[in-house]
Amino acid sequence: MDQPNHYCDRLSAAIHAKQTAAVVGIDPVVERLPRELRPAESNAPAAADAIETFGRLVIDTVAPLVPAVKINAGFFEAHYEFGVAAYYRLVAHAHARGLLVIGDIKRGDIGSTARLYAAGHLAATSGPDAARIPDAVTLAGYLGVRAVEPFIAAARAAGRGVYVLVRPSDPGADEVHEFGRPQRFYEHMADLVRSWGDDDTLIGTCGLSCVGAVVAPKDSASTAALRARLPHAPLLVPGYGAQGAGAEACRPCFLAVGGSAVVNASRSVIYAYEAAGKTDSPREQWLACIATACRRFAADIAPLAGFSPNLAP
Amino acid sequence: MDQPNHYCDRLSAAIHAKQTAAVVGIDPVVERLPRELRPAESNAPAAADAIETFGRLVIDTVAPLVPAVKINAGFFEAHYEFGVAAYYRLVAHAHARGLLVIGDIKRGDIGSTARLYAAGHLAATSGPDAARIPDAVTLAGYLGVRAVEPFIAAARAAGRGVYVLVRPSDPGADEVHEFGRPQRFYEHMADLVRSWGDDDTLIGTCGLSCVGAVVAPKDSASTAALRARLPHAPLLVPGYGAQGAGAEACRPCFLAVGGSAVVNASRSVIYAYEAAGKTDSPREQWLACIATACRRFAADIAPLAGFSPNLAP
Repeated sequence: MDQPNHYCDRLSAAIHAKQTAAVVGIDPVVERLPRELRPAESNAPAAADAIETFGRLVIDTVAPLVPAVKINAGFFEAHYEFGVAAYYRLVAHAHARGLLVIGDIKRGDIGSTARLYAAGHLAATSGPDAARIPDAVTLAGYLGVRAVEPFIAAARAAGRGVYVLVRPSDPGADEVHEFGRPQRFYEHMADLVRSWGDDDTLIGTCGLSCVGAVVAPKDSASTAALRARLPHAPLLVPGYGAQGAGAEACRPCFLAVGGSAVVNASRSVIYAYEAAGKTDSPREQWLACIATACRRFAADIAPLAGFSPNLAP
Repeated sequence: MDQPNHYCDRLSAAIHAKQTAAVVGIDPVVERLPRELRPAESNAPAAADAIETFGRLVIDTVAPLVPAVKINAGFFEAHYEFGVAAYYRLVAHAHARGLLVIGDIKRGDIGSTARLYAAGHLAATSGPDAARIPDAVTLAGYLGVRAVEPFIAAARAAGRGVYVLVRPSDPGADEVHEFGRPQRFYEHMADLVRSWGDDDTLIGTCGLSCVGAVVAPKDSASTAALRARLPHAPLLVPGYGAQGAGAEACRPCFLAVGGSAVVNASRSVIYAYEAAGKTDSPREQWLACIATACRRFAADIAPLAGFSPNLAP
């Protein structure tokens, strides 16, 4: 009650404003950019410039349609410090367009190091860096609570959030996450995330904690069971679109409360011009492909949060 | 046999040259720098400059004494892209001083993203970025083999290596790693790491794989059992010094072959001037404290790899 800017309250408001819980992932690789944006030179600064320009145009295109974007740090780190600078500038650009931003950083290290990662990725609330910091970040919680505590403290103080990996979307992760009987490792991680986030000082007026979880949709029964282990966690749901899951598979992730889940699609939206054969086309044409794909995605996800699909251009 | 520049062969040669398997960790925080290096302004570029200067001086001081340094990315990311640029410059500086470099990045994400992280952190072998890339990196393998495959491919191609987290040094990680009965989660991770690295194309003339593991020393029996699960993995051993483990606890990590294990100490070496009351002293005095601490550390670890301790200044 004393957190007017709690992450989940802000997320819930943003979802209500856009009438959908669809989140667009910004995963830019140079080889898949529209031809007009491909860099003339093959070096890190030129590549970073190109993916930043693409990212800005994608953000401008999807900003009216979705509540948030997820920016994947790995795609920027591929271009060294030049890409990292572009990542931070894109976070600020998305904020300027009224979007919430999830920084997909998947960091996880022991406590003494986690404090530093939190400083660089979630903590700044004043000065020139505050606008460059995402509203939430993804974390790997595999080193225990001390690896996430500094991020949780930053989230509490700044009205931001974290999403801890519980069940990843890549089937290759099963060799780790299906470990354990009768309890699975991903169920154990869910129980830990619940224990880390179930604290009155972390829960917003919407009843959700700022400690959320990344939960990939698989069969509905196992997803519903996992959701039941995480009654207060906002969920970030990967795996829709290019990775194969449909909206129906995501349904068990949603609770009746706004902000309970967001569904991410990256490649199926931002590279929609490829399937349309518009990679070499003028800007308005390839951007129109992205807009159309985003509109369909947003409409497909809308009912999961109780909204009517809106396909009007 | 066809990898003359295999990571473990290079590591073994470096250990033999320095007669110790001690590795110094570069974990610089502004508040603990010697007074003369503390930045006048409180902003990210000034902080990044200060920790880079400190890092260069530490590297110059320890270069004659140890085979490698471990540079902790988190301490640089705390200062945004300015710190990341400093990280890469320090890697190049350590290479110029003849040191091997372990980039402590703890990255781990699904395959499509892991490919990009590998591009930024381990893959470059030509052009201006090659010298800025570490010889090995630490990884989180919790998303399965596809999260590490791009790094393993880069390691194979470039004669570099990876160390996958198996048993972390932070006792707070036990809530994750002690999970599972009768087999523990960290034992399961060890078995996975073995399966990922036991391939003829990954094994050097020394008999070790370029796929290694981070294994913290605890009681000798459990450490020996863990080592037995990883017969071909080079080990990166955290937890010595400020984190409490002594050299004897590290012994079960070592095999008879050079490069089988390196022991890292960070804070107990690089901040040795604090305990000596030399934080405000002239440069030659605080650097002498670091040199003395590094010499003692190197000598303490020397017998583990079969060398006589050398404490001569």
